[in-house]
Amino acid sequence: MTSKDSRKAVIRFEPQGKRVEVELGLTLLDSTRRAGVGIRSECGGRGLCGKCLVVVEEQSNLSSPSTAEVRLIPSEKLRAGYRLACQSIVRGSTTVWIPPESRLEARARILAEGLLRPFELDPAIKRVHVTLSKPSLQDTTPDFERLHSALKKMGFEEVEVGHELMQRLPIILRKADWDVDIVLWMDREVIAVEKKGGERGVYGVSIDIGTSKLVLHLVDLESGKTVSIKTVENPQMAYGEDVISRINYAAFKEGGLRRLQELVIEAVNALIKEACREAGVEQDRVFEVVIAGNTAMHHIFLGYPPRQLAVAPYVAVVRRSVNVKAKELGIKVNKLANVLALPIVAGFVGADAVADVLATGMYEAEDMCLLIDIGTNSEVFVGNEEDIISCSCAAGPAFEGMHIEHGMKAVTGAIEKVRIDPKDYEVEYETIGDVKPIGMCGSAIVDAVAELFKCGLIDERGHFKRDVSARRLLREGGASKFVIAWRDESAIGRDITISEKDVQEILLAKAAIRSGIAILMKEKGVREEEIDHLYIAGAFGEYLNPQSALFIGLIPDVPLNRISFVGNTAIIGAKMCLLSRSMRRIADELSQKIRYVELTAHPDFHREFVDALFIPHRDLSRYPTVMKYISQKP
Amino acid sequence: MTSKDSRKAVIRFEPQGKRVEVELGLTLLDSTRRAGVGIRSECGGRGLCGKCLVVVEEQSNLSSPSTAEVRLIPSEKLRAGYRLACQSIVRGSTTVWIPPESRLEARARILAEGLLRPFELDPAIKRVHVTLSKPSLQDTTPDFERLHSALKKMGFEEVEVGHELMQRLPIILRKADWDVDIVLWMDREVIAVEKKGGERGVYGVSIDIGTSKLVLHLVDLESGKTVSIKTVENPQMAYGEDVISRINYAAFKEGGLRRLQELVIEAVNALIKEACREAGVEQDRVFEVVIAGNTAMHHIFLGYPPRQLAVAPYVAVVRRSVNVKAKELGIKVNKLANVLALPIVAGFVGADAVADVLATGMYEAEDMCLLIDIGTNSEVFVGNEEDIISCSCAAGPAFEGMHIEHGMKAVTGAIEKVRIDPKDYEVEYETIGDVKPIGMCGSAIVDAVAELFKCGLIDERGHFKRDVSARRLLREGGASKFVIAWRDESAIGRDITISEKDVQEILLAKAAIRSGIAILMKEKGVREEEIDHLYIAGAFGEYLNPQSALFIGLIPDVPLNRISFVGNTAIIGAKMCLLSRSMRRIADELSQKIRYVELTAHPDFHREFVDALFIPHRDLSRYPTVMKYISQKP
Repeated sequence: MTSKDSRKAVIRFEPQGKRVEVELGLTLLDSTRRAGVGIRSECGGRGLCGKCLVVVEEQSNLSSPSTAEVRLIPSEKLRAGYRLACQSIVRGSTTVWIPPESRLEARARILAEGLLRPFELDPAIKRVHVTLSKPSLQDTTPDFERLHSALKKMGFEEVEVGHELMQRLPIILRKADWDVDIVLWMDREVIAVEKKGGERGVYGVSIDIGTSKLVLHLVDLESGKTVSIKTVENPQMAYGEDVISRINYAAFKEGGLRRLQELVIEAVNALIKEACREAGVEQDRVFEVVIAGNTAMHHIFLGYPPRQLAVAPYVAVVRRSVNVKAKELGIKVNKLANVLALPIVAGFVGADAVADVLATGMYEAEDMCLLIDIGTNSEVFVGNEEDIISCSCAAGPAFEGMHIEHGMKAVTGAIEKVRIDPKDYEVEYETIGDVKPIGMCGSAIVDAVAELFKCGLIDERGHFKRDVSARRLLREGGASKFVIAWRDESAIGRDITISEKDVQEILLAKAAIRSGIAILMKEKGVREEEIDHLYIAGAFGEYLNPQSALFIGLIPDVPLNRISFVGNTAIIGAKMCLLSRSMRRIADELSQKIRYVELTAHPDFHREFVDALFIPHRDLSRYPTVMKYISQKP
Repeated sequence: MTSKDSRKAVIRFEPQGKRVEVELGLTLLDSTRRAGVGIRSECGGRGLCGKCLVVVEEQSNLSSPSTAEVRLIPSEKLRAGYRLACQSIVRGSTTVWIPPESRLEARARILAEGLLRPFELDPAIKRVHVTLSKPSLQDTTPDFERLHSALKKMGFEEVEVGHELMQRLPIILRKADWDVDIVLWMDREVIAVEKKGGERGVYGVSIDIGTSKLVLHLVDLESGKTVSIKTVENPQMAYGEDVISRINYAAFKEGGLRRLQELVIEAVNALIKEACREAGVEQDRVFEVVIAGNTAMHHIFLGYPPRQLAVAPYVAVVRRSVNVKAKELGIKVNKLANVLALPIVAGFVGADAVADVLATGMYEAEDMCLLIDIGTNSEVFVGNEEDIISCSCAAGPAFEGMHIEHGMKAVTGAIEKVRIDPKDYEVEYETIGDVKPIGMCGSAIVDAVAELFKCGLIDERGHFKRDVSARRLLREGGASKFVIAWRDESAIGRDITISEKDVQEILLAKAAIRSGIAILMKEKGVREEEIDHLYIAGAFGEYLNPQSALFIGLIPDVPLNRISFVGNTAIIGAKMCLLSRSMRRIADELSQKIRYVELTAHPDFHREFVDALFIPHRDLSRYPTVMKYISQKP
């Protein structure tokens, strides 16, 4: 496998099976972009984050390992062919294997392809070609009216031209000799007039502004294709990890709102820049930006004071979708581009939740659906085409590994699956990136709690049983913990354990969600067996073992084949709105239609919460599967 | 006449008969403002323009004449009690007489009162009071939707709140304890939310942007009353006195458009500031600005490149009315205020012309109307409720005294009326301000040409007859001229004369207008006797002797009682649109309905123009009144 051109090399990416011919001197990261192969790169190719780890076949056809690589890659792995794509300069042809933890687009693509339900491509941004008749002494129609009537003939009834473009209109029309491409927004606002036949495309971006992460999709609005996907940590993290601390900072610190807004706008601009660079798209070809995010992120992004979101009755500034000129927000795309912030439902059921419902399509299902979006704030929806009811659960970030001694995010080095042998209490686990484990991500913690319970190591209250002993069960001064990975297996020089306190954290978090589910099911009059589809959304959901989730009582007891992991539905919903005007109309309808239940004001909430603190639940009749398992145990 | 308060004085203004008590130390100019008496002041009270000339009774109760006054007022007049109001500081009570040439509001008020036809007060800006229910856990409706549904109940179906106001909305609503006054624009955009029951009013301004002068009316939008009127020279005059030189400067000089736009915006801001100060109105209480002006002024004001207005086929950028946020233009009023630029008809029939037609009401008349707006560019309209046809006449500024040896504007020192005795060719004249004359304004020049013709001193081609001799008829080297004011009567130490060349200038100008009238009448199939109303608009028109205008053939031969001088109809039309949404709808309809005839493209134009170079016309049958006069002459 070599190139015919001596200045080029052929790079083959696996498991995607994609080949690309690139100039010598490019990095492997550049090559992935040429090949359209998604790879994680959170530091932007600066050799800092170590996310772009790959395995190469022909080490000799690449530059020698950089100091960054020596620092970030253990020597035995370096010898095995592990490299950082951003540091490896192509000197000749090779095959490159991208391990799962380094894959970006692959995972995102699965979500995109899995979830992009069929809908008509009908974006708010349209490009049309118009040939205008030239003015003469017999026809002195002004420029705007000339354009207006030509567009009217094409079915665009009442178009408008904004002030800034009107100032340039006479010059553009004459330079283009009256033969122009028009970019229209919502069939009514002309946002670009340009010489006909430009090669440059028409793009938009959808962005999910998560409390901890921003995800951006750059989309070709004429083909509907996603041409680049970028993610970055939400830089507001420096001001608190949860929405409440962000709201407090924005509301009570002098200049706090402005600072948080600037941070997220800067991050969005950086993502746009990076995505455009990767796809070879000029930033002024981005004509629309669609934003999803929880209500606090939505408010801060728009510069709305969020103070009243922190205090009862938790009132938002605006529910309906908001259109603002990108220029007004400082978003660096085409200067006449629109930013659409998707509508919200309530103070704690945000635009991301509306996008979730949109993406799953539960609003048009005949079947009864339950949707759980698990994040730092978790939202639950129950309903179908007739009616949808929602709530927000203050579960906290335990499922993201926070407040858990050995908890961590789902990144390389995180144990993601745990199994405990019911006979000898020995443990099998899987680690992201197949490296020595550093800690456990949420799915592993849920597994661990479920397995401890199934093995009879903990009781229904989450306490380690006194009458059981196991090699891995350590009791230190009244506090018990269970070893998942021994010190010598771990990368941290200590045992990786799960303690009784960790189990309690998880039970508090799951009770918050489970009680929300219970209240909504009660409000809707829906029983477990009537749930036809159970959707789990959110990054955490992707790794979750549904059986473990069921065993600890996080989700209701439904047949496992009714459970789907739908991933980041917020970004998918936002992208659907970017690509379809009817979808954004539906989003607005949903924001009005979805009923919101304020859990803290519900009379049954406290009892449901306390009942849900049990494993799987105080009311075992709700968990026949678990009852059956327990009863069959020897 | 004294004040009871020793720190105050009583000033009585005549002929208005208004008394005002003012603090000692104020100027007379300040006092006029306190009294609500309009007085000219083009330099803003800096002692530069000399327009605020007044006559005072008690010289001793004022400060001594300033150096500016000594410079600008002849010593004999100073002794007679003439002073500049801006320079005269009140030391005690006095009566002040304001001569006609110094009066401002008086004249403007006549126009306003004379012309403001009855119409329903229905401004685009409305203030309504709303009491909102307070949010609770049972009603967590977001702020915007809360406001929206309250306004909906009041009949405002779909209101919007812009980005900037939305950011402030939650704070305003809570500070006002949910009891607010809402300022709405066009029943759809909320542009202010404020604590209920503010004492501060709701205002708008209408502005006529003339080539040489700006006129502003500050209007209380709730009562419809005009609270201040201000005028200033168009500072663009420095870049040329006619529209063509402005267009050329804007189109071909680097930064020219921006410079001219800035000049007019600055002038508008100064007028607004002055008017608001005079009326005691805060500038942020001005919620709308309505602009009329010819197409070139309109384009430059909006920053539209006017180049194509200077070359055939003279195509404008936009015909329909334009709404722009004041902020975008840099107009210093409320930051969410709208600027409405009235629609135009064509490249040389502008928004001022639409306002003219609106103000006269000819568009709803059954009678046949002829409207002539005489200015540097003159527009002519013929029609009634069925149809209106228009043209633009390149008459040049001769009627404003330009290109005439002793021509001048209609200001103090200008001869404004001339009569020549047919027997001895002696002259009677009237001078504005009753001072020694400096020159002749347009009305006097028209009088002079008419009188010279009536006396038989010039022939139908405007040449001085060789067979007539008169003391005042000077013949110098083949060129003839007629003395209107002898050297010793004049303030310039020279004879004030009208030459054959001056007459030719006037004939060229009148032929330009008269041929336009002829073409339109022909196009409409209207004969002289069918004209029921002949309206003369424009500042020049106010002083014009209609009989003289008829005798030189400037206007068609209609009975004098059918002629009305309608003054500055542009500002009146603009004010009607400020006060009435139906008027602005009509303005837009008119801009589409009024047909435009490009004279230079009309096959009969050249012949009509040449015929109109005669006094009164080559075709005498069109001027039976003049024929009758000539035939009755001895």
